[in-house]
Formats: sequence, structure tokens, C-alpha cells
Amino acid sequence: ADQNALSEAADRNGQLTKPPGALGRLEDVALWYASWRGEAAPQISAPQVIIFAGNHGVTAQGVSAFPAEVTAQMVMNFEHGGAAINQLAKTFGASLNVHALDLDRPTADFTEGPAMTEAEVVAALQTGWNAVDANADVLVTGEMGIGNTTSAAAIGAALLGGAAADWTGRGTGVDDAGLANKTRVVEQGLAANAGRDGLEVLRKLGGRELAAMVGAIARARFGQIPVILDGFICCAAAACLEKEEAGALDHCVAGHLSAEGAHEKLLAGIGKEPLLSLGLRLGEGSGAALALGVLKAALACHSGMATFAEAGVSDA
Amino acid sequence: ADQNALSEAADRNGQLTKPPGALGRLEDVALWYASWRGEAAPQISAPQVIIFAGNHGVTAQGVSAFPAEVTAQMVMNFEHGGAAINQLAKTFGASLNVHALDLDRPTADFTEGPAMTEAEVVAALQTGWNAVDANADVLVTGEMGIGNTTSAAAIGAALLGGAAADWTGRGTGVDDAGLANKTRVVEQGLAANAGRDGLEVLRKLGGRELAAMVGAIARARFGQIPVILDGFICCAAAACLEKEEAGALDHCVAGHLSAEGAHEKLLAGIGKEPLLSLGLRLGEGSGAALALGVLKAALACHSGMATFAEAGVSDA
Repeated sequence: ADQNALSEAADRNGQLTKPPGALGRLEDVALWYASWRGEAAPQISAPQVIIFAGNHGVTAQGVSAFPAEVTAQMVMNFEHGGAAINQLAKTFGASLNVHALDLDRPTADFTEGPAMTEAEVVAALQTGWNAVDANADVLVTGEMGIGNTTSAAAIGAALLGGAAADWTGRGTGVDDAGLANKTRVVEQGLAANAGRDGLEVLRKLGGRELAAMVGAIARARFGQIPVILDGFICCAAAACLEKEEAGALDHCVAGHLSAEGAHEKLLAGIGKEPLLSLGLRLGEGSGAALALGVLKAALACHSGMATFAEAGVSDA
Repeated sequence: ADQNALSEAADRNGQLTKPPGALGRLEDVALWYASWRGEAAPQISAPQVIIFAGNHGVTAQGVSAFPAEVTAQMVMNFEHGGAAINQLAKTFGASLNVHALDLDRPTADFTEGPAMTEAEVVAALQTGWNAVDANADVLVTGEMGIGNTTSAAAIGAALLGGAAADWTGRGTGVDDAGLANKTRVVEQGLAANAGRDGLEVLRKLGGRELAAMVGAIARARFGQIPVILDGFICCAAAACLEKEEAGALDHCVAGHLSAEGAHEKLLAGIGKEPLLSLGLRLGEGSGAALALGVLKAALACHSGMATFAEAGVSDA
């Protein structure tokens, strides 16, 4: 982050025609955004949403309410413009790219060993890295992958500790028996995969779409592109990066608090306060895309408002 | 609200390509909006933001951190496009109208008797009523008026009970001594004005911009135009209407929870759960305009998404 830009942005913020602090968190995120863009009064004009899709071997254990074919079907839906994320990206003027990662070759079932080989996780990281548009001025990373709340629960438990049951939720909507089974699967995954390093956990308990999100988030950092994190799965992936290097998510803001129960613990683990809390639990980057509206509004105010002097308004 | 439209909208919602309930509160507000528009799959294409400005005799008691001249100065700022609400309206594609109500003739100081005569409150209600564009498809009512958190605090206490201190906050930023003085002023206003009917409270403790918001909210109801309520002052005005007739705010959603301390109690008093909570305390309709982004997104999803059948996606 650029401390000069931050300081200039803070000076500007203090002169805008409003009582000090009256725009609340909009002021905080505007300053944070300005510091990462290296400009005192930046605009948001080129948001990019990227959805990564992957399939999970662990679906063989019956962890989802939906069949694994739905991953590929939803990729078609994204491409045809029919999903929630299509409408959200359009509403807030974002480009939308979809990357399906080897859907016909699911990861290995992590109850029996690592989900991915080193070559596989590196390939997925690279797909994510390369998917970022260098000209984007804010990035949303979303995902689709039947079974991936199971993966995210295992990652949360591996990185942050606690029992499998504390991290396992209903995902797309499993019943009580399904939840008990899913919890057992997470426990088995933790038992079958030693090692608690960030990137090792990503490889062993994650999935291709999670690794791709990690690659994209890392790439955004090098391009001074602020990132809005989505829900449980996106934050599980991001937590692997933070665990690998503290501060690696300083260019990221949490878009929302998901209704998937353990998301709050995951956000606390990466030290992020969500912008929105509207009970979403869809993935696809939907909560982050919704928060894009808030971030755009924050920068529109910060960079577009008149100062007291410009407007001839008396200060307090 | 149109129960047929609501039922058709709920049917549609159940067929969209997402797990049931996965869009959380976006689904609730989409159905609420559809019921008030009388359409199963409506779009939002013509949002209107109206700011009403008024001056308050009670500013003679030193209740604000800013001088009373700032009301007129901010009206100029709205007209020149320099305020926060201008940037927010532009961000979310809303038209913006500004109505200054007799700024050179402040209301009477309510510590000495009613703020307005009957003719004055009726004129302000009419201004609000007439300001609504019959072709708008959602309405945000905002306000500007130095001294009006004092008025809103007195209204809250009069309508919902409790001590003046429970309802009085720092507004644009008074210090401890200022807060003590403001609390005394609210107490005196309550003592000087008997009668706890909704519209009587509005006349005696309110202001022209509050009455105009009431007129606009009532007019919107007759035009099937859903309303997004803003913060403390807007909700105090709206509460007068609800007190006059229970259910009068059923066509309204609460846009946000303000940082002005008593807003939460006021929202509870009118039975509304805010969409956003971002620490805003600016007025001008700013919190409601920010929530307009959420409402637009909700309807874009509801009316734009493909169904499982259309997209060829397997249901759970």
C-alpha cells in the first residue's frame, strides 16, 4: 500500500462536505482502496469478476444435496448469462470471466489422501494468476464446485483448529443425516492429510477452483488491484495464503458474511470485518459482487464530492 | 400489496438456478418489491431520490455543531452536484430532486410551543406529496436541516416513550456539553407540546422537511411505489405515519442502520430490519441510496436469472 496516497486521500476526506466520519465505513474503504491504487482520488471503472469451477472427488462420499454434474451445468449457465452472478456483474458494471478447471477430472477424494498432486495445484494456481486482467481496478473471485463447502470446512479446521463439527455446515442444503456424514468426511480428510502449512493444506484439502482463487488473489496484489473476498469457500482459499504469509490479504476486503455457519470464524481467522450481512450462501462471487456496489459508491463519494471550500459550505 | 403477484413471484423464485434460500435477504426484498409493484418479475429502471430541506427554530438553543446557514449552503451543493447523495444517486442510476422548504422562515422553537401551525404542516405535506414522480419505480426520501436530529429525537421519545436522553445523540458531532444541552432541549420540547398522535407530533416537534417526507411516503403508497427509508430523521418522520395508521409503512424497507444511537430503537418501533449497517450518519438519503444498490441487485437476480428448466441444470 502507498502511504503517500493514503495520506493525501485522508486529507481530502477531511475536507469533503459532510461532518467528519459521517460516511462511516465508506470512508474507511475509500482510503484503503486509494492506498492500494496509489492515488488520492481514484475511480472504479473496470471491475472484474472471475468464476473458477472445479470438481471434487469427495462428492463420492455423498456430501452435497446436488449431483456433481451441476458444476458443469452451472458453468453453461454462467456462459449463457442465466446465473445470479451474471445479473450482479451486469448491475454493477463488472466484466465476468469463467474458467472451468478440468471438470472431467475431479480432484482425488481427500478422505484417502491429498486432493491434488503438486503439479495439479501449481497448474490451478497458474490458471488463476493468468485469469486476472492487468487493467482491472478491482477484482472479485468467485467459485462453483459441488462439494466445495466440504473442502472449505476441512481447510478451516486444518488452518485454524477446532473440531470438524465446528466448521461443517449445510452448504447447498443437506439434511441432518447429510450434515453428520459431511462432518465425518471432514474428520477423515483431516486424519488422512498431515501438514498444516497454507499451501500444503490448499493442495491436500482444497480443490482446483480454490487454488485458482489463491493464484488470482496473489496476482492482484502484484498489480495493485484491490480484491473483494466472497463467502466461505473464497475465504478458506484466501486463508491458505494468509497462513503462508501474514499480511498477504491486506489488499483484500471481506464483501459479506455468509449464512454458511463457519464463515464468521473464518473471517475472524483472517482478521476481516464483512461489509454486508444479508444471509447469502450461494458462492459464485455473489456476496462480493453485491459489495462491489458499496465499494463503487464509497469511491464515487470520496473522489466526486465537493470540498467545503469548493462548495462554499461553512465548516463546523 | 398484490397477493397474486406475490404468489407468482414466490413460484418463480423457487425455480431459479440456485439452492433454495441461497440469496438470503435478496429473495425477501425481491418478493416484497414484486408484491407492491403488482408484477411477478419486475425490473427497477426509474429510481427517484428526493431531498427535502428545512430550517429549525430550535437551532437558537445551540443544538448543532454546524450553523443554520449550512442548510441553504448544502442545498446549493446538492444543486451543483457536490454532495454525497449526488454521487450515490449517479452510481445507482437514480434521478435526484431537491426541495428547499421556506428556508428563510424556520419553524418555531419547539421548546416554547408547536414547531408548525396546521397550515404550515399541511403545506409541507403537500410539497412532499407533489414531489413524487408517478413514473418512479422506487423512492428514496432524504433530508437536510441543521437541528433536525433534535427534532427526530423529540419525535422518537413522544411516539415511543422513554427518556429524552435515550433518544438524543451527537448528530453532526456535538461534544459532551452540547449533548447535555441538546437533551435538555428535547425534554423542554416534550414538556411544551402535549398530544401524542402521529400527525400532531409531526406538527409540534417535527419540521417542514420531515413533514414533506411523510407526504412523499404516503403518495408513494398510492402509486404502488416501494420506498427505501433512510436513517434517524427519515424514520422519525415515517414513524409518525405508522403511529397514525398501523401498516402505513408496509410499502417501505429500511435501507440502513445509522450510527446515530437511537436509530436502532426507532427501527424496532416501526418493525423494520435494516439492509445495511455501515456506520453512516449523514442523512441526505445517503444510507437509503446505498441500499438502492442492494434492491436493484435483488430484482436483477429475481427477474433476470434462468430457471432450472431453462438452463438445463439438475435440481436437488
